[in-house]
Amino acid sequence: MTEPRFLSPQPEQVAGNGLLHRRAFLTTSAALTGAAGLGFMTARPAAAQAPLEVPEWMKVPGAPMSGYGAPSRHEEQVQRRFSSSPGTVGSGVSRTPLEHLEGIITPSGLHFERHHNGIPGIDPDRHRLLIHGLVARPLMFDLESLSRYPLVSRIQFLECSGNGRANDAPEPPQVAVSEIHGLVSCSDWTGVPLSVLLDEAGVEPEARWIVAEGADSAAMTRSVPMAKALDDAIIALYQNGERLRPDNGYPMRLFLPGYEGNMSIKWLRRIEVTAAPMMTREETSKYTDLLPDGRALQFTFQMGVKSVITSPSGGLEMQDPGLYQISGIAWSGAGRIRRVEVSADGGQSWAEAALTDPVLPLSLTRFRMPWRWDGGPAVLQSRATDESGAVQPTRTALHAELGTNFNYHHNAIQSWLVSAAGTVSNVYA
Amino acid sequence: MTEPRFLSPQPEQVAGNGLLHRRAFLTTSAALTGAAGLGFMTARPAAAQAPLEVPEWMKVPGAPMSGYGAPSRHEEQVQRRFSSSPGTVGSGVSRTPLEHLEGIITPSGLHFERHHNGIPGIDPDRHRLLIHGLVARPLMFDLESLSRYPLVSRIQFLECSGNGRANDAPEPPQVAVSEIHGLVSCSDWTGVPLSVLLDEAGVEPEARWIVAEGADSAAMTRSVPMAKALDDAIIALYQNGERLRPDNGYPMRLFLPGYEGNMSIKWLRRIEVTAAPMMTREETSKYTDLLPDGRALQFTFQMGVKSVITSPSGGLEMQDPGLYQISGIAWSGAGRIRRVEVSADGGQSWAEAALTDPVLPLSLTRFRMPWRWDGGPAVLQSRATDESGAVQPTRTALHAELGTNFNYHHNAIQSWLVSAAGTVSNVYA
Repeated sequence: MTEPRFLSPQPEQVAGNGLLHRRAFLTTSAALTGAAGLGFMTARPAAAQAPLEVPEWMKVPGAPMSGYGAPSRHEEQVQRRFSSSPGTVGSGVSRTPLEHLEGIITPSGLHFERHHNGIPGIDPDRHRLLIHGLVARPLMFDLESLSRYPLVSRIQFLECSGNGRANDAPEPPQVAVSEIHGLVSCSDWTGVPLSVLLDEAGVEPEARWIVAEGADSAAMTRSVPMAKALDDAIIALYQNGERLRPDNGYPMRLFLPGYEGNMSIKWLRRIEVTAAPMMTREETSKYTDLLPDGRALQFTFQMGVKSVITSPSGGLEMQDPGLYQISGIAWSGAGRIRRVEVSADGGQSWAEAALTDPVLPLSLTRFRMPWRWDGGPAVLQSRATDESGAVQPTRTALHAELGTNFNYHHNAIQSWLVSAAGTVSNVYA
Repeated sequence: MTEPRFLSPQPEQVAGNGLLHRRAFLTTSAALTGAAGLGFMTARPAAAQAPLEVPEWMKVPGAPMSGYGAPSRHEEQVQRRFSSSPGTVGSGVSRTPLEHLEGIITPSGLHFERHHNGIPGIDPDRHRLLIHGLVARPLMFDLESLSRYPLVSRIQFLECSGNGRANDAPEPPQVAVSEIHGLVSCSDWTGVPLSVLLDEAGVEPEARWIVAEGADSAAMTRSVPMAKALDDAIIALYQNGERLRPDNGYPMRLFLPGYEGNMSIKWLRRIEVTAAPMMTREETSKYTDLLPDGRALQFTFQMGVKSVITSPSGGLEMQDPGLYQISGIAWSGAGRIRRVEVSADGGQSWAEAALTDPVLPLSLTRFRMPWRWDGGPAVLQSRATDESGAVQPTRTALHAELGTNFNYHHNAIQSWLVSAAGTVSNVYA
């Protein structure tokens, strides 16, 4: 017997090209015996190896504790890759290295960045937030006064609306998954509900929008519908437990769950309550979706349902044929992920992946799927469905609907080609 | 009208000394008008202040992006405080600065540390994990082979069993909450189920324990019941998305959800499957609970149900009397937190706090409670109940049951005295 018991007597193949039932990796042994020869995956008998050495690091006292820890120097390759517009240093993006990460929380040091003129060096004691416009009482907050307001916390994703557009190129870019899809991250955000502050300011009856302005030198400015401001918008003060990092808006940012990232104005300094949207550059020239007929969709706030397989993914190398765990992330601006399906034959057949708890609304959800790679070519895909019933489209379907001019809201299915040699590459399938 | 509408017409006081119903801060305005003068908390009319300035950081391009971000230099006080045994640098503890944190995720750089002889400088390419003893097939894993096994992820707390014992001193120590309770942290852990590896090795019928050994120079070693090893134990490879930090076991550690932290052996190098516990130093001389009669409780693995208010907490200063949000964390080694009650009158009356979603098993749970401080003295307490029905004891009850000799598993209720001057101090109540 060479099969793991939890796949025997017959491993349940649930879709083409080796996809196995999602429960295969979730079963634990009810009763152990010493009789079964499993030969599960890649471990080798200890007898075939050198004895366990006592390495030199066990022979000397180790390093001391520290005030603030850092990753191992052996993990220095796990970095955000960043690029900026010509002639600038701070206008550009850095991307979360999804291919190196697991779980759903993004370390704050690896959260993607999108800055329009760099990270301002804000003195938190001098920073102010003004709420004014169509309100009964314009209010000014400093960090100390704002910090006394009630806080809420939520684990939620943030995604740049330009994420994924690299796959609009005529030929699939042969880069890591993070170079295509790394403008999405997920954190435990804590902040003050904007509704509480607007309540205190006293919003006038004709108010329908707010306009949020950042304290960066681009004065990044976006209009937000009042309904969103009163629903789940927060003024975020903490990210993953600690105060916001400078690259994520220190000392305070707007956070609009499920909306395109640029609207969650970093370094927030001003909220003007208005009757109409401000028609800023960022909602007329930029962050609109150009259609084939030359018109543009404006105010397309909500991010679509999306998923991507991060392991295996572009540029990675498979080891020997055998059992693998496919792993990836899914998310939707509409709420919870209901289902992720995986295909190993380029979309001819699909099977449901296991979703790792917790499956939270407007959060990344980790999915995993057992796969027996037979050593032949395979095209791996994932397709997410959210609780609204929206299904992630194919690249072809997305282009049929919206054309190829639009720069934002690319949520098409990603396809990875595993070659017989075990190399993984980006493919349009 | 000077009350926020969501507290009117009558703010519902639910327990003595100003505790308000937990829903008070959760309500959002259903209909906004400009008529109400709220004067909620601490914001001041903008008209009473200088105009919103355009600070100098908006007049120059900001800083560029980076490969791996860091906290603001204005937050440098948010550090782990650490101390080591005399004559050593690496045998001691560092504590998570709970008073500065919010939400439930602990940044990995601020996760508490407990090392027995420092942090070993492990070369991950040379590190090996041996599984041997009462198994059919002793197996040796390197990091690459282990990484191909199926992964699971869970958001779970880790607590040193010595956490809280500072409150055994005859007089309450006047220190920050982290100096008393900061040996608890919570992360998104990802790793390989130990059951899968044991299954592959083939555990012999007489096996009842495993013995786990670390690759630090203390060779930290603990015995773990086989039932736990086969239940939810994992070999953790990732913490909060990225590979483990060196101070948390890089490149791999045992993780035993809900058990005292020292058993989750860092830098894991060896698992021996045995019929009986090994009776190592760490389970005979150390990490046992000395009773008044001189006997000691041994193998007290599971951490008790506990909570602590982190804001306000020892050493912090209140501002003016008025509305506050009490905030804290709760956890239990038995599973989910079912309820947290808060008292503002030293335990004479209690009311239920709001638990922030997600409330996950064996995780930190954030609780929050609205409180109207009238400016007089108040004793704040929190009391957690877990899903097993276990209730956090008072300090008096804990001492009546176990005496005052024992050094571990201090889960007594923490009391904070708010003075009329607004200072917050530790008190035994």
